[in-house]
Amino acid sequence: MRISILGSGNVATHLGRAFFRSGHKIIDVCSPTPGHAASLATELNARAIQKAGDFDQDTDLCLIAVKDDAIEEVARGMGFQKALVAHTAGSIPMEVLKGSAPGYGVFYPFQTFSGFREPDLSEAPFCLEASSPGVMRRLSELAESIRGRAYEVDSAGRRRLHLAAVIACNFTNHLYTLADELLQEQGLSPELLRPLIMETAEKVMEAAPFEAQTGPAVRNDRLVIEDHLRQLEHKPELQELYKLLSASITNLHLKDDK
Amino acid sequence: MRISILGSGNVATHLGRAFFRSGHKIIDVCSPTPGHAASLATELNARAIQKAGDFDQDTDLCLIAVKDDAIEEVARGMGFQKALVAHTAGSIPMEVLKGSAPGYGVFYPFQTFSGFREPDLSEAPFCLEASSPGVMRRLSELAESIRGRAYEVDSAGRRRLHLAAVIACNFTNHLYTLADELLQEQGLSPELLRPLIMETAEKVMEAAPFEAQTGPAVRNDRLVIEDHLRQLEHKPELQELYKLLSASITNLHLKDDK
Repeated sequence: MRISILGSGNVATHLGRAFFRSGHKIIDVCSPTPGHAASLATELNARAIQKAGDFDQDTDLCLIAVKDDAIEEVARGMGFQKALVAHTAGSIPMEVLKGSAPGYGVFYPFQTFSGFREPDLSEAPFCLEASSPGVMRRLSELAESIRGRAYEVDSAGRRRLHLAAVIACNFTNHLYTLADELLQEQGLSPELLRPLIMETAEKVMEAAPFEAQTGPAVRNDRLVIEDHLRQLEHKPELQELYKLLSASITNLHLKDDK
Repeated sequence: MRISILGSGNVATHLGRAFFRSGHKIIDVCSPTPGHAASLATELNARAIQKAGDFDQDTDLCLIAVKDDAIEEVARGMGFQKALVAHTAGSIPMEVLKGSAPGYGVFYPFQTFSGFREPDLSEAPFCLEASSPGVMRRLSELAESIRGRAYEVDSAGRRRLHLAAVIACNFTNHLYTLADELLQEQGLSPELLRPLIMETAEKVMEAAPFEAQTGPAVRNDRLVIEDHLRQLEHKPELQELYKLLSASITNLHLKDDK
């Protein structure tokens, strides 16, 4: 496919690289920050532009990978006659793209992207929505061309997926940060936690997390819980989180025992 | 080494197997539940006993791997003349073992153990404490004999490690459970989350989690956060957790921006 990209952040960069490596032709990379557009465009052998009005019309797909609250506005400024337009956002309805092109859709990679690491897209679900079956077919083929798995998910489902991702990925990562801080405070290396973090993730590749739950809260071990709350007396915010999460575990698992 | 084991739960089972596979001789497996003791003892080519008083005295180490609140009591019933005694608990001081044997210590595997999966001990830190340098040397050799890494950590450090593990492992796993439930409610497969869970863990093998943080809270994206809170109106407990975790992320990262 001939693909143009609006955006130069982590999603734009990693998807752009994946398309390029899979043999797609990248036409334009558009970013209001000239340096960002130029750097990604050079890497992808494409042209750098600064304004959406400058997109080459002779393209098959224009992918919008910018901040959620900018999507609607940039889409309104587009008037593709032939190309499809798709955005990559979990929480934005497809319909904001209506009017930007005859065919439009959503190409939401259900994966986490950071600048420092090439994500494993060969395992990633791509949650797709399309204005017509023809558009769906083309978006599916695109996802599969970069070794992703294509799933058809409507806007309501995608909203829910995004919420679940925040909980299982963003919040989880924040817990890693808080745990690292607690070790550093005591002069202990955060590296000690790494095998445990990996094993915790590996376990739920094999079993439901409900079955894999361990720790003082699921045993309702009050002595250990009280000791941990005492250790958190200097961090009232984290102490509150500890209480809520422990209560949530105990409630869920005790309910199940009945 | 000649090793006896008190307990037949996940920690006793997985450590027992690791010792057995590495060529140690397992003497006795003691559990008040006869079926459990017999089953583990058969697997480890050992003798099953039901009472701590029945341990063969001719052993090098008696490992106590029972529930935290039972350790002190079982240790009081022991009177080894020659063998070392060690427990495997994160939150219990070493000193509860005083009097159980001339040499004693702590052999705390910093890893998560579930019945359904053989944990990767070759990557696991073993946090050790000992009543003498000689005991420390023997516990270190034991950890290394099963391909673990030995670390000397005192009771205060171990208490802190256990707290960090609860946060980074037990709470994280619970977030996986809550996210799965949200998908199932909407008819979506929890399997969709698995690549994301794996990638989130993989990322912090390469970078500090603070650097790896993504999502609406770190961008302070109020529109998305408000939408997620609306989706959680039927789950007030989880809604509260979402608010607290988002505020914790926003506070930590905004503080850093200044």
